[in-house]
Amino acid sequence: MDDDSDIARLMALMARIPGLGPRSARRAVLHLIKKRSQLMVPLGNTMQAVAQSARECLNCGNFTTGDLCTICTDVARQNGQICVVEDIDDLWAMERTGAFKGRYHVLGGTLSPIDAVGPDELRIPRLIDRVTTENVQEVILALGATIDGQTTAHYIADHLSAVTVTTLAQGVPVGGELDYLDEGTIGAALKARRTL
Amino acid sequence: MDDDSDIARLMALMARIPGLGPRSARRAVLHLIKKRSQLMVPLGNTMQAVAQSARECLNCGNFTTGDLCTICTDVARQNGQICVVEDIDDLWAMERTGAFKGRYHVLGGTLSPIDAVGPDELRIPRLIDRVTTENVQEVILALGATIDGQTTAHYIADHLSAVTVTTLAQGVPVGGELDYLDEGTIGAALKARRTL
Repeated sequence: MDDDSDIARLMALMARIPGLGPRSARRAVLHLIKKRSQLMVPLGNTMQAVAQSARECLNCGNFTTGDLCTICTDVARQNGQICVVEDIDDLWAMERTGAFKGRYHVLGGTLSPIDAVGPDELRIPRLIDRVTTENVQEVILALGATIDGQTTAHYIADHLSAVTVTTLAQGVPVGGELDYLDEGTIGAALKARRTL
Repeated sequence: MDDDSDIARLMALMARIPGLGPRSARRAVLHLIKKRSQLMVPLGNTMQAVAQSARECLNCGNFTTGDLCTICTDVARQNGQICVVEDIDDLWAMERTGAFKGRYHVLGGTLSPIDAVGPDELRIPRLIDRVTTENVQEVILALGATIDGQTTAHYIADHLSAVTVTTLAQGVPVGGELDYLDEGTIGAALKARRTL
């Protein structure tokens, strides 16, 4: 191991990035040093720029460099629908489908009594606020099919009686083979079966 | 996907780090933004510091922040042995064993006529130079057991007739089961068998 403290420090920091361990962090640092001008310098600069400018959108919780994010300020998007997601990576996943043209609301997690995460720790009051002020007709709950996700979904549905609250369909994933699916998924798909 | 150009640019740059693809780069960026002050700011700073200061040791080719690396300037290390490695990650791998107390020489690759890599593209002339000036008794070739690695090893051995040239032993890896080893390795281990 090189004793040069900056390189050692860089390896230690890189190893804390999810998806990289100590070994792959070493490989990454070696690659970065070799590609100093093409990769390391712009990466370092961009990281500092993002660290300085990135903040949460005051309206929906998405990342932005201003007060409001590009989705909240986009006049081409429809107003009447809000898609509620747990975290920003879920928002990105929804956006990649290109199937949703409304607005988003990022909760910042799920309700979890064990971890002392209540409605006020999430962006739930702000959501209830938005539903009344933004002339919303439908709230789509795109939360994980986990216990915490479903608890959160039911809590939100209970507090939004004035609008239609929908949730993502459960069933067989595209390309999925029955043999590899768990019983819960097959059961849900059977219950929600539709006429061909 | 977020349209904020800095965040998108950061994702694109992160995806070029070996070990990260587009998906894990997105996850990494999300994590970095969330851990802005604890991880992203120091990482950006350290990257810039290393990008500015890191260079190759004039003597052996290891990374350093000065003219000579910490191994070349370490008076506690023995002088008579030089361990020749292909690249700096191999040097790090050797150092992690703690089994070698001599000096290193990093070639920067292997001879490869197809890629037009000849002796002058590597640090081979400098190695021959060091062997004569540094009072070296043994050159240990710790090159990969690949065709290019072995070609390079034979080339170096041919040009260093004045000193003992050794190479790493080939055989069964520690913890290895014969059933999972290739024929070449088992054959090499059988040839190099020793009395118990």
